[in-house]
This record gives sequence, structure tokens and C-alpha cells, in this order.
Amino acid sequence: MSKPLNFQQMIMKLLSFWEEQGCLIQQPYNVQVGAGTMNPATSLRVLGPEPWNVVYVEPSIRPDDGRFGDNPNRMQMHFQLQVILKPDPGNPQEIFIKSLEAIGFNQREHDIRFVEDNWESPALGAWGLGWEVWLDGQEITQFTYFQQAGGLELEPNSVEITYGLDRIALALQGKEAVWDMDYGAGVGYGDILLPAEIEHCEYYFNIADVEALTSIYDTYEKEAQRCLEAGLVVPAHDYNLKCSHLFNVLDTRGAIGVTERANYFQRMRRIARQVSEAYVEQRKRLEYPFFDVPGWQATAAGTEAFQTTVTPYETPQTFVLEIGSEELPPTDLTSALRQLRIIVPEFFENLRLGYEQITIEGTPRRLSIMVEGLQPRQEDLETVVKGPPADRAFDASGKATKAAEGFARSRGVSVEDLKVLEEDGRRYVTAVVRETGRPAVEVLAENLVELVAGIRFEKSMRWNESNVSFSRPLRWLVALYGRDIVPFSYAGVASGRTSRGLRPYDSPSIDMSDASSYADHMRENKIVLNSEERSRTILEGVAALAAEQQGTIPDNQDLLEEVTNLVEYPTPLLGKFEKRFLSIPEEVLVAVMRKHQRYFPVYGKSGRLLPYFIAVRNGDDEYLDIVREGNEHVIRARFADAEFFYNNDIKKKLADFLPELDKLTFQAELGSMLAKTKRLEDLVPEIAVLLGLEGKDLETAARAAALAKADLATSMVVEMTALQGIMGGHYAGLNGEEEDVVKAIAEQYNAVSQTRPGLALALADRFDSLLGLFAAGLAPKGSNDPFALRRAAIQIIDNLVTNEQFFDLRAGLAAAAPLLPIEAGEPEIAEVLDFINGRLGVVLRENGYASSVIKAVVAEAGHDPFLAWRNAADLSEAIEAADWQDVLNAYARCVRITRNLDEVYELDPAALSEPAEQMLYSASQEAVAATDGTMSTLIDSLRGMVPAISRFFEDILVMDDDAGIRQNRLALLQQVANLTKGMADLSQLEGF
Amino acid sequence: MSKPLNFQQMIMKLLSFWEEQGCLIQQPYNVQVGAGTMNPATSLRVLGPEPWNVVYVEPSIRPDDGRFGDNPNRMQMHFQLQVILKPDPGNPQEIFIKSLEAIGFNQREHDIRFVEDNWESPALGAWGLGWEVWLDGQEITQFTYFQQAGGLELEPNSVEITYGLDRIALALQGKEAVWDMDYGAGVGYGDILLPAEIEHCEYYFNIADVEALTSIYDTYEKEAQRCLEAGLVVPAHDYNLKCSHLFNVLDTRGAIGVTERANYFQRMRRIARQVSEAYVEQRKRLEYPFFDVPGWQATAAGTEAFQTTVTPYETPQTFVLEIGSEELPPTDLTSALRQLRIIVPEFFENLRLGYEQITIEGTPRRLSIMVEGLQPRQEDLETVVKGPPADRAFDASGKATKAAEGFARSRGVSVEDLKVLEEDGRRYVTAVVRETGRPAVEVLAENLVELVAGIRFEKSMRWNESNVSFSRPLRWLVALYGRDIVPFSYAGVASGRTSRGLRPYDSPSIDMSDASSYADHMRENKIVLNSEERSRTILEGVAALAAEQQGTIPDNQDLLEEVTNLVEYPTPLLGKFEKRFLSIPEEVLVAVMRKHQRYFPVYGKSGRLLPYFIAVRNGDDEYLDIVREGNEHVIRARFADAEFFYNNDIKKKLADFLPELDKLTFQAELGSMLAKTKRLEDLVPEIAVLLGLEGKDLETAARAAALAKADLATSMVVEMTALQGIMGGHYAGLNGEEEDVVKAIAEQYNAVSQTRPGLALALADRFDSLLGLFAAGLAPKGSNDPFALRRAAIQIIDNLVTNEQFFDLRAGLAAAAPLLPIEAGEPEIAEVLDFINGRLGVVLRENGYASSVIKAVVAEAGHDPFLAWRNAADLSEAIEAADWQDVLNAYARCVRITRNLDEVYELDPAALSEPAEQMLYSASQEAVAATDGTMSTLIDSLRGMVPAISRFFEDILVMDDDAGIRQNRLALLQQVANLTKGMADLSQLEGF
Repeated sequence: MSKPLNFQQMIMKLLSFWEEQGCLIQQPYNVQVGAGTMNPATSLRVLGPEPWNVVYVEPSIRPDDGRFGDNPNRMQMHFQLQVILKPDPGNPQEIFIKSLEAIGFNQREHDIRFVEDNWESPALGAWGLGWEVWLDGQEITQFTYFQQAGGLELEPNSVEITYGLDRIALALQGKEAVWDMDYGAGVGYGDILLPAEIEHCEYYFNIADVEALTSIYDTYEKEAQRCLEAGLVVPAHDYNLKCSHLFNVLDTRGAIGVTERANYFQRMRRIARQVSEAYVEQRKRLEYPFFDVPGWQATAAGTEAFQTTVTPYETPQTFVLEIGSEELPPTDLTSALRQLRIIVPEFFENLRLGYEQITIEGTPRRLSIMVEGLQPRQEDLETVVKGPPADRAFDASGKATKAAEGFARSRGVSVEDLKVLEEDGRRYVTAVVRETGRPAVEVLAENLVELVAGIRFEKSMRWNESNVSFSRPLRWLVALYGRDIVPFSYAGVASGRTSRGLRPYDSPSIDMSDASSYADHMRENKIVLNSEERSRTILEGVAALAAEQQGTIPDNQDLLEEVTNLVEYPTPLLGKFEKRFLSIPEEVLVAVMRKHQRYFPVYGKSGRLLPYFIAVRNGDDEYLDIVREGNEHVIRARFADAEFFYNNDIKKKLADFLPELDKLTFQAELGSMLAKTKRLEDLVPEIAVLLGLEGKDLETAARAAALAKADLATSMVVEMTALQGIMGGHYAGLNGEEEDVVKAIAEQYNAVSQTRPGLALALADRFDSLLGLFAAGLAPKGSNDPFALRRAAIQIIDNLVTNEQFFDLRAGLAAAAPLLPIEAGEPEIAEVLDFINGRLGVVLRENGYASSVIKAVVAEAGHDPFLAWRNAADLSEAIEAADWQDVLNAYARCVRITRNLDEVYELDPAALSEPAEQMLYSASQEAVAATDGTMSTLIDSLRGMVPAISRFFEDILVMDDDAGIRQNRLALLQQVANLTKGMADLSQLEGF
Repeated sequence: MSKPLNFQQMIMKLLSFWEEQGCLIQQPYNVQVGAGTMNPATSLRVLGPEPWNVVYVEPSIRPDDGRFGDNPNRMQMHFQLQVILKPDPGNPQEIFIKSLEAIGFNQREHDIRFVEDNWESPALGAWGLGWEVWLDGQEITQFTYFQQAGGLELEPNSVEITYGLDRIALALQGKEAVWDMDYGAGVGYGDILLPAEIEHCEYYFNIADVEALTSIYDTYEKEAQRCLEAGLVVPAHDYNLKCSHLFNVLDTRGAIGVTERANYFQRMRRIARQVSEAYVEQRKRLEYPFFDVPGWQATAAGTEAFQTTVTPYETPQTFVLEIGSEELPPTDLTSALRQLRIIVPEFFENLRLGYEQITIEGTPRRLSIMVEGLQPRQEDLETVVKGPPADRAFDASGKATKAAEGFARSRGVSVEDLKVLEEDGRRYVTAVVRETGRPAVEVLAENLVELVAGIRFEKSMRWNESNVSFSRPLRWLVALYGRDIVPFSYAGVASGRTSRGLRPYDSPSIDMSDASSYADHMRENKIVLNSEERSRTILEGVAALAAEQQGTIPDNQDLLEEVTNLVEYPTPLLGKFEKRFLSIPEEVLVAVMRKHQRYFPVYGKSGRLLPYFIAVRNGDDEYLDIVREGNEHVIRARFADAEFFYNNDIKKKLADFLPELDKLTFQAELGSMLAKTKRLEDLVPEIAVLLGLEGKDLETAARAAALAKADLATSMVVEMTALQGIMGGHYAGLNGEEEDVVKAIAEQYNAVSQTRPGLALALADRFDSLLGLFAAGLAPKGSNDPFALRRAAIQIIDNLVTNEQFFDLRAGLAAAAPLLPIEAGEPEIAEVLDFINGRLGVVLRENGYASSVIKAVVAEAGHDPFLAWRNAADLSEAIEAADWQDVLNAYARCVRITRNLDEVYELDPAALSEPAEQMLYSASQEAVAATDGTMSTLIDSLRGMVPAISRFFEDILVMDDDAGIRQNRLALLQQVANLTKGMADLSQLEGF
């Protein structure tokens, strides 16, 4: 092996490579940016209709990635190589892989993977879909199809390829840390960059003057606005970039809270949008000069003529459709297969094409529909067509009139074949029209577009001038019926007989002569089409590798499914990491392994983690050691990062982080997270009392409340938000807090609390958020729910229901209200209750309750979710009873006659003189006495009252002329009607 | 010819070229900088002892170079390629030329020239010596040997090569304007950069918020300081760069006055110095890792062994010493030749080496000393050495004592040879010591270093580890005596027999066997050693070319001498430019041609400029058309620039620029240039009255004063300060101001005014500056004279003297004082007068007056320079007279007896009773009557009084016992002594 390129040589090679692909080389930007995307060569040039192809290096500054040089590959500055291809050249992934080969990576020796990673820049108003590219587990490149930038839809879309040069060089040079690499001319990367790296970290984390920089942000924003008013696009953009950098610095200094963050993003996005619009306008004015660049003239898309000969098959043949695409996200793959399994049979039925068997399979790069024994022609079709009325079709003599002749002609039948049918008492002439089935190939060619287009994805994207949307770019279509191509085209791709093989084998072309050989071809090319087979291979392989280390792998269906959907040919491999990392909390290690790396963590017999992980390669086991080494390097860097945070955090006590919460704004009007903590210290005990806690539990709840939010200021949580609460609990434990306090803190964000003090904390936290944010006018609108209040509401419901805990939300909210720094009175409480009830309805619906039942219980018991839940169950059962309608009718009579009364009358039992009155009175007294808060008892009571009610209405004229008598009777009925108060509003039920 | 490289390919090629030379490639900086020098890869890495070799591109932002895209090669952003070689590799110029060849410039086809251009960055506290590199007249590169950076002396020095990539590409691609170039991938440079260029110009010139950015400057400076306090080098440097950019923007907005500018520079320099010191400290702490870079290990300097055989010449031979260097600045060449012509003959005399003839010649690259008929050996030397006194050397018997023997032995003579000599009446023993002459080669070898080192330059530089100082790096030494090398070495260079030829021929090695062939070798290699010959060739060639266009070239000795010193082989060529440029004022065009381009402007018969210029190429006339085209392109760009400014300016009336003077600070305490203008409007008429102006002249002076400074706000003057006044006059003329007003404005900065209103303005302006700045405590100190007050004082003197104008400076300054916004009373006026008198002394001294005469006239007439001047002339003549000492003696007697009196006595003529008294009294009365303000009359009067004075002192005892008599006599003598008051203080003269 020749000496690997040094860092600068690698850059030069990549620049030259892309120059040869027609890209313009540009220089890095002279403003500090967080990513190459922010350079106007990307953020502006991707806008508008012109072509644009560019490559440039971008030193990218991300202050909060700074690790004081302690991390092997994470720094406040890293080098990106940015490539923009506009429009999509059709094979950007393959060109990209060639570029890796140009600098020395043989794809055969590595595991190069495209792992779903969508990109969004709230500050730029931009987003796109794509992947992280993994090289042996290391994220080395971000590969994105831009969909929107500066708030504008992009057409055409651009392909953005962002190389992480440092990590690529690290892999290329085979070093432990970037600092050890040859930066160029034999000079160490660390010798050039390390001192400044450490200095910048110190500046960003500890020195930068927050107040001064905040004020500069404001000034720069104003300058950007002035530039825009003067029509200056790039100067305005520059200032927005400077704002963005200042924001990053302030953020790293810990000076920006959640709401402030959203606010800053909005400010930057507003400028970005105006800049983008001004740019688009400018290009138009300039009449789009890039259209004239000779090298960028779009080559006419290869509209290959389809083969025209069609074999006149007489017997059923195999049909195969393979939709080849760039790597589908795992969930999209799952979803597409589920959809296809439903729609494909329907598809063939609708087309009147019979078949023996349909098989739907898929891998990240292909969705395969295999149909065995597909009829060569459609079934013939007979339809009866209605013509003119019989009396107009035939004259008195029974002879066919002109009308009949015309009808017969128009339907292609002879007059003799017309028949008379009677319908709804009128007689018509009808014709039986026979449609002869057409050849399968012809019909499929006409309809396959619709089939493919019928697949829906949660997020889909456009990538070329066809403007078709799909999960990821669709790159090839195999469509064969027997030996014939079924000719159609979609998204600019023409169907054919050529599939593509595995990435590690350079995606070789796979030509097939016959649909029936498809499966064999796949197998020969080592593509495992069947997900369960891949899944099984993984599971067995993983288990075997774990067993070698006396370890086990706990079940994790989600991870297994994801990994299964990331590979076409899985080969598990075992990697190890340094034992010292095991001193980091297990949750952290596991989160890193599963979430970031899609590795299977290995547990020992004692249930503790072992210093191993299992990764799954896409491809065979050749050069597996290179892949293993790469993955081991990655996990080492990741764990080093976690270790950095962890060690940072445990230097202090958890309580010592509390003062820093003052810098984290919860919301402008509601104050900092520290202010929220103070409120929780008051609110949690009140909620706890409402929950019936006492003694030790009350103390526990109070202590947990005081510490609950402290971990938001810890480095680990700042870095991995998903660990909030978990880390707080862990750190509390390290500080010697009592076990129950630890648990309450740890579980505060969970949907369901395991402990009662934890429940008090969880509820109080959410009451405070909901009521506070509603009072601040920040109730969710449409899909906009930045504070995740819907989830908060649902968690309140779930938590109470799962814990079978009755709780009056009105009391909880009323306790929260006076603690808030802003006015939150009855109207706000009502609004929040209403909002929770909306969620409650959804939860109940998802549990299969009828909508009338839901309405009934929510109307009366919505303030107490568990009560509503239980009533819904009982009521649903009740209405299934044979006599239910009688019960309901009886009760309804009492309600209907009283519900429009403005007044509640006083009942005077002594004045009830008629036996029917007395009977009903005593029945209702029994019902009241039986009340135990359950719906079933209530229904039983109602049932028991049916005879009394019937008798009452038979014997008694309620509306007696004597007002006293009348009102006393109404009072009795009101009492009966009121029996369901606080339980369910039966008038909402069907049949009422 | 193959297709030239596009811009990006050219960059890639240059990066690769320098990488092959061992340079580390780096990326441009991510902060807006004015030049690659500011990137820490230069500004920090040149500090300290470590080696450092780097190449990088730097987009360089110079807001005030913005021309809204109207100029073919001047933009607010241009691209530099920055190369640092540390230490000097010994042949950086040649490597540089190879790099030009690498991108397609054959040096044979062009005129590549190294034209003196020293570099200084007041903001960085850095300076260096070097050149602009010209390619066919176009400045394409700055080539500098850094001497200091961040206020620190550099050791080793660095070579900095800064390519102007845009201009180089322009020449390479043969386009009219950068906008037309291929930027890369077939995309136009203008298509990529022009819209943003125009926008940035608009922002910098018209939009930027001055107040806001000023405040950000302050904040950033504070952040830099905070960084420094935390020991953070690079973050502090970054902030200083940001300050620098802000300063540039503010400057372009016209928001920074002269003093403020100096103040800002000082602030940036202060930070730069601290950053540099911190960096040096840091490198030391890191133990200088770059010393370990394998490719940067200094190769041991080739200390070739000198040839040792020395021919035993018996007859005189030719000696030649050629000091080969990188291009010497023209004035250094002139100065070196002048020095050598003095010191070389002395040198050989001192060495006792006889010769027939010495010839000293030189070109920019060589200083040649040719000595014909140099004796092969030194003359023998006889010296008489004094020994002990004769009476101690010989005893009574005449026998030599021990002392004599010892003396003889120590001098290498025998006792017999001792001789006795008598000196000052004492007798000594002496020995005649004979020193035998040593071979010339031996003696020269020992002494040539001293000769070379004896050449002094106004500015000299160090460049390698020898730390020798010279005008520019010394690169070779030819030192031959006959056929022998005279072996010595200097500045790391060993003498030899190899010279180098012309640059356009790739500086071929010229080996010579014999000193006598030196001149022939030079001739054969087309090097014209003799300056007069080069000068004549140029003059004749230029005249002939001008004549072809019916034009003439006015004499311009300075230009001719400069051009002569810029070439080794001159070939004049005629270029032309567009006639339209002739509408720009001639002064501007001529200034551009002469000053910037060293071209000879061509005048037509009518005395008006013709659209031609004559350039002088270094080299022969092959490919002259390429060179001509290049030069024509350059002048076009330069004129387009001037046109841009001119057209900008004439959109407004001159008077309309006045309000903008309010933004130009003259000095913080003295207010803006507008405030100064207001003062001049008051002061000029007063001075005019003092000068005796009246009527129309007074009006003219007042109008000129009002408009005088307006042109400082015009673009043309902002760009070319040397045109101040000239442009004001021109614009005033365009506005229809009267001819005299125009003249007064135009000549205000001249040393000598041609008109009397002009004189009033010139004096008033300088009085205001001098008194104001002295009052503000800004009198020049040492060599620090930022406001050029010495020149102002000298111009006041010259102006008055040349105009033969008596003027009492005291009155002028007294008129200026009350107008100033700060206190300027008697003490300040006295200080300024004293300062002007100091200059007056210098002026008189330069005119050859004896220092005693100068003291005499300055003491009494310093307040009126022309009077002092005239008196000095008269007095100088007077003291040459044969009887002068008598006159002086007589007068002196009167002075001496009276000068220590504290009182001035009243003379009572009636009380003078003695004839001698009366005689002196009447003589003095005659003298007073004869007074006409001239020194000569005064001297004549004194001469006439000599007898009376003599008689007086003979006959009269002044110190009579009677106080009345005594005092009356003293009063008479006081009157005589006072005759010289206000003319000269004769007591200062020799012989007094």
C-alpha cells in the first residue's frame, strides 16, 4: 500500500476530482460559518432555476462541539468539503463513491453506508432529505437533496454532499486522533491546529462577553435589514451569517434558553427569507447567466426507446417489478412494504389479471413485487348498459326505432341483442357489452405508474425535473413479464431489465432475461430480499458473537428492525471498546450505541454491560477487520465525548447546577428554568397532597422538585437532550440523594411514573407548563406545537390512567395558577381543561371506544381522566346489553322533559301523593344510595328504575295545571336525570 | 498555444507548485482580512525562530478599492496567493519566476521586473523591504522580506510572496477586464462575482452605519483584550482582524480623519504587539515543534571550499569585484555607486595596492568594481618607530643599553640600525621598520568584507541567518584577480567566478576565467553596466519614439535616473491609450504615468499630452508586442480608475464637498477640516493685510481660503493625496472661479507661492497647523513628526525668502492664536517661533553660512525669515572685509561694558561734555539716521564709528565716580550697542 495522502493532498485530490465532474472550484468563505451550506455558494446558488455545480472547502465553526482538544475527532472547527450538484446528475451517490476511491478508499474493503439523516436548518429556513454516509460506522459525509432554502421551495433541487474531511483523513491515515494526522508537508495537524483549538474553546465556553455579543447581534441584524432595504443581497447574507456565529457563541456560553432559541431562529430565518427572495429576484433581473455555461447544459435525458416486440404469451408468466432507489429510510421501507402488500393484490384485481401468488419484498435499495402465474391477458368483461325506455325503443309493432338502432350501434351490439329489463317499475332497453381482455403487458404498462405513485411516505422528496415525490430518488425500474419488458417510465426513469447489485461490489448491473430468474439473480448477487431472513441472520449472528464473550443481547425489536432495513446483505461483527468507558453510566453508553451507531450492546451474565458492541455490516466478511477497526474507532470517539461531558458534570454536585438554570429561559414571560424550579417547589407538595401523599412521600416529592431541572444545565444533557431526567437521577444518586428522590427525578419525563412522588412531580411540571404557556398565549396552533404541549397533555392522561389514579385536573390547575408570574384565571384553566379533554378524546378513540361514548364520558368526567377512562369502558359494555335501549329510553324521558328548564326545583317528597310518584321517588332514592362512583353501578341503578319510570309516565301527567304539583314532579324527574352528573352525559349516546 | 488555465486551475497549479517546494497548503481565513498577511498563517507564524513554509489563497477585502465593478482590475475583493518561506531559501525570486512559468508565463516573452516597494502595516506593527513584481508594467505580486511583525524584530526573516491572482489571470487569459475571465468550469468571473462586488461597494460607500460599527469596533477591541488577559492568542488576533475590517469600512465611509486614523492604527498595533508576544511565548512553551518537520530541516549552507592555488603574479592584473544582489532600489544603486567611487580608491590606497584605473559601475542587480593594472603585491612600507630616550638607550660610552637592545629586538631590527632623532628638543632612539608588501589576493581576501560592509543604505534589511544588512539580499560575489578567485565570503555567500545574466534570459550563469574578461562577458550577455550608457540609450530611444508621433518628451532627470536604475538592458517601447482619457486633467495622467508606471508621457507640439506613453523594458525587443500590450492594459486600468474618481467628483461643485470636511478630523482637539476651513476664512484676510494685500487681492485670498480644503473630500484626492490643491484648483476652475482663486488654491501646498493671495493662504494654513498642534501638545519629538510640521516650518521660510517678503511671524501667529479652539498664548507662540528658528538655522546652514553668522542673525531677526536670510548674506560678506575685526572690536567694547547692566539709562546729550563723548554721540546719531533696515548699511555705520569709539575709550573713563556722569556715558554706549537690535547679535560672531 502506498503512503496515504496527507490532509491537504486529499483536499487537492477531491477538488480536482469534482472539477473533472464539471464543478467550479471556489474558496472557503471569509466569514465564520457553521457549515459550508451557509456559504452563499450554497445557500444562495441553490435558489432559482439555474444550474450550479461547485466544490469548495469550508472550515466550519461549531463552538459547542469544542472539546478543548480532548476528543479524537470532535472540534469547534472541522473542515468540510462542500459539493453542490444542481440539477441532480442522476447518479450522485456513485460519483461520490468514486471520489472516495480517488483518495484511496476501495469500497470493497469498507462498509460504506447511506443512513437516513434528514437535514433542517431552522436558522436558514432550509431542509432536505438524505443520509449520513457511514464509512465503517463513522459518519463521514452528509448527503442531502435540498427541498427548501431560505423558506423557498427549490426547483430544481440540488444535491448537497458535505464531506467531513477531518474524519475521512483520519480513516485514510489510520490515526487514533485527528491531532496525529499529517496535515501537509509532513506537519502535524495538531501542531498546526491544536493550540488555537484549545484557545477557541476557552473563549467560547468561558470568556466571551455575553452582554456585549448580544448587543452586536442586534446591531448586525439591523445592518442586515438596512442592506436588504437597499437591495443588497450578499452583504445582508453576510450579516446574517455573523449573527448566526454570534448566536452559536452565546449558545455555547449557555446564555440562550429554549424560547429565546426559537426566537433567534425566527429572526435569522426572517432575514434568510428576505435575502433569498432578493437573490431570486436579482437572478431573474440578470436573466440567469448560468444557463449559458457550456459545461452545464443538461444532457437530454436518455429517453431510450422501449423494446417494442411483445411476446404473445398464452400461458401465465411471472411478473416482476423492482423499484430501485437510493437508500430508503428504514421506516419508509417498512411502510412501503406494508402498503404494497395491500395495494398490489387490489391492483391486479382491478386490472382483471389473475395470478397464482404475489410476493412483496424489499431492501433499502429496492422494493420488489413478484407475481407468479400472472395471466397473459385480462379476464373478458361483460357489462349491462342501460339504453332508452322500452316504449321509445320499440314502436307499437315491436319494431326497433331509430333510438334503439342508435343505442345498439353506439354499444357495438346488434339490435337483436338488445334486451328489455324492468327497473323500479320502468322498462328499459339494455345491451350486454363484452369487453375483451387486453394483454397483461399492455395493461401493466399503462397502470404501473399509478401503482408506484400510489406508495405514500411520511416525508417525501423531489430530486429531478420530473418533480415526482418519493422517499428517496428512484433510480431504476425493472419491469418484466416473462421475457418482456413492461414499458413505462416514472420520475425520469424508463423501465428495463437491469437491476443493480450490492454497493460494496460497486453496484454492478444485473441484467435478467426473464422475470422468473429475478429471485435467483438477487440470490446470486447476495442480496437478501426477504426482511425476515435478514432479520434472522442478524439475530443469530449477533447472538453467536455475544455468546463468544459470554454475553447476551436483550431483545430490542426497534433496533433489529432498523438494522434489518439498513442492509441488503447483513454480516454482524463484534467490536470492543476500552473498559474504562464502563464507568460512564450505562444509559449513556447504550444510548450512544443504539441511537447513534445502531450497534447492539452486549450484556454480561450479571446484567451489566460488557466492553463490546456488535455492528452489522452491509456486505460479506472480506476485509472485515478494516471495518471492525473503523467501527471501534468511532465508538471510542463517541465514548470519549460522553466521558468528557460526564467528567465535566461530576465535578460539581447536581444542586450546584441550579443557579445556572437562571440563564436558561423557559419562556420570556414565564421566566427562567430556575423560576420554574421555584414554582415546582411550591406546586409539587400541593399536587402530592391532592394525590393523597403524606409523610416521607411528601418530603421526597419536595426534594425531587427542587433538583428536578438541575440536569438541564449539565453538559451531558445539553449534548444529549434525550438523557434529561435520567442524568439528573444518576447525578442525584452520586450525590447521595435518597433512592426515591433519585427515582422521581429520573422518571419525570417518562410517560408513566412508577413512584407516587414521581407522579406528583410529573403532573405538577406539566400543569405548570400547560397553564403557563396557555396564559402566555402560546397554545398550540395547527401543527405548530413548539413546546410539545400535546404530548404533555397526553402524558398527564396516560400517567393517571395507567396508575389508575383519580385526580381532578381542575384542582391541580387551580393550584398551579397563583404561582405563575402572569394572570391565569378561570378562563385559562377552562381552556387548558378543554385542551386536555381534546387529547383525552383522542386517547379514548385510539382505544377503540365509540365516539358517542367518548363524548358522553368526556362531557361529564373529562376533568378526571382515569374516571373518564373507566366510565368509557363500563359504558361501552353497558350499551351492548340487550335491554339497553329500554334503559336509555326510560332515562331519556326523564331528561327530555326537564332539560330545557331554567330552574332547578326543590323536591318535596311529602307532596308526592300518587303511588307512581312515590314509586319513582323511592327508586331514585335507592339509586342515590347505591352510588359508588362506578358507571356500572349507575347503569344498574338506572336499569332498576325502568319500571318505576314507565309507570310514572303512564300514570302521571307531569304538566299538571297546579304549579306546585307540576314543579314537584319536575323536581323528581330532575333528580333522576341528575343521577349521571359527573359520570357521563347519556344524551350523547346513540338512540337517546 | 494551448488554452490558458482558468482562474481556479491557475490557483490549483500554484498551490501544487509550492507544495512541491515543501510548502504546507492552507485554507483562506474565515475572517474578512485586507490581505493574506493578516491570516495568522503569516502574521503569527513569521514570529519566532521556527521554520515555516506555507501557501494559501486569501480573498482580500479592501473596501476603498471598490469601484462598483466599473474598473477592469480594481475591486473591493481581490484574490491573493500568499507564500511564506522561512527562512529564506536563497533563491526565492527564481523559484517565484518558475511558478509563473508553471502557469504559462514564459519569462522570455514578458518583462518581469522587481520594482522597489517597501511594505509597512501600521496596524500590524510590521514592515519589510522588497518589490512589486511587474509583469509587462502590471503589478502582479508583492515580494517582501519581512523585518518586523507585531512590533517584534524577526529572526529569521521570512520571504513573503503575495500574488495578485486576479491580475495574473487577467494577463494569462488576455482579457480586458477581470469580469471577462473564465473563473472556472467555463463560468465567467463576472457572473460569479460582479453582482456581489457592486453590492459590497454600495454597502461600504453608502450604507454602513458609522455609529453602530464604531461601537462594535470598541466592543471587539475589548474582547481582544479579554482574550489576551486569558492568554488566548488566536481569538485575540481574530478580534483584531475584525477591528481592522471595521476600520476599513468606516474609512471607506469617510468617517475617519487623519488623527483618528493614527489613533486607530495605534490601537490595532497595541493589540497586534500583545498578540505577537503571547504567540512567541506560546511557541517557546510548546518547544518549537516545527523544528521537527523533516522537510524543513535547513540544508547546511553550501560552504564550498575555495580554490587554494594562487598564481604568483609578478605583473599588474585586472581585479574585478561584482556584488550580485536582488534588484536594488534605484536610489540605493545611485547612492552605492557614489559611495564606492569615494571609498574604493581609499581602500586600495590604504592597502598599499597601486593601480592604473578604477571603474565603478552598477545595474539593479550588480555593483561592479573594476580595477585595471592592480599591483600583484602591496608596496613595502617603511615606518619610523620611536623608542626610548637617547640618553637611556646609550650609555655614556655610546654603547647600546638593554633598553635599546630590547627595543631593536621588538621591532625586528638590529641595534646598529637604530637612529637618534630629535623631537621637541628631546632626543629619542628610533627604528625604521620595513614591512614587506603581501600578495594582492591575500590582502584583498582579508579586506573585501569590510569594503562591502562599508556601503551604507538609507534603509537596509536582513534576510538570512548571517544577519548581515544590505539594501537587498546579496546573492553572489565575483571576485577575481587575474585568473584567481579572491576568496572571501559575506552574508553567507562565497566569492567565485560566476556571475548571472539578464532576468529575461533566466539569469544564466556567466562563468569567467579571468577578471579582464569581465566587461566583455557583461557586454556579450547584453548587460549595460554603465549608467550613462543606459541613460543615453533610454533618452535617445524615447525621443525617437516620441518623434514618430510628432511628440516630444520634456526633460525629467528624476524619472530618467529612476528608469535607468530599473534596467540592465533598456529597450524603450511606445504604447498608446484611448484618447478619451485625455479629458482627465493632465496633472492626473502625468502623475499616473510617471509616478505609478515610470512611463515617459509624450507631449504634442502644442504642449498638450498625446495619447501615448513610452515604457522601458528590461531586455531586448523580442516579443515586444506582448510587453506593449501588457503595458497598455495596465495604463488603461489605471486611467479608468482616475476617470472613475474624476467623473465622480465633477458631479458636484467643489464647494459642495465642504460639508463633508466635517467628517474629516483634522485633530481631535482642533476639530474637523471644516473647522479648520472656518478658521482659515478668518485668518487668511488678516495675514493678507499683514502682507500688504488690498482690494481685489484681499477678496481673492478670502475666496481661496473658503474653498481651499474642499478637495480633500474629493475621490481623486482621497485616492492620490499628492494631487491635493492641484485638483482643488482644477475643480474650482471648472466651477468658474476666478483665475487667481484657482491659482491660490492650486498652489497652497507648494513650497513657494507664485501669487500673493496664494502666499497669504499658504502662510495662514501653516500658522494654524503649527500653532494649533503645538498648543495641542503635538510638537514633533525626535524623528516622530506625523503632521510634517518640520516641512511646514521650512515651507514658511522658503516661501518668504523666495518671495523676498518681509514678514513678522510673531504677528502672523498672534493672529492665528485667538481663532483656535484651544488655548494658544505667548508661551505657545514663543515655542513655535523657536521651532521655526530651528528650521531657519538649518536652511541657512544648508546655504553655506557660518554657524556664528546664523546664530547672530537668528538671534535678532529670526521672527522674519527673509530679513534673517538677507542679514546672513550681508553679514557673511562683511566679515570677510580686511578691517572687520577692527569694526567688531570697536563695537564689542561698547557691548561688553554695557551688557551686564540691569538698567537701560536715559541719555542726556546735553550732559555729554567731553569732545570724545560728543564725537561718539554724533557718530551714533549719524548711524541711526542712516538706518535703512539693511545689514550692509548697519555695518558701514559701525565702521564709520570705529574712530569715535576708539577715541572715546582712549579719552574717557566711563566708570566715573559721579553716578550721573557714569550713567550718561553708559547710556551713550547702550545706544551704540543697540544699533544692531533686530538685525543681528554680533556677540555671536567669532572674534567678538
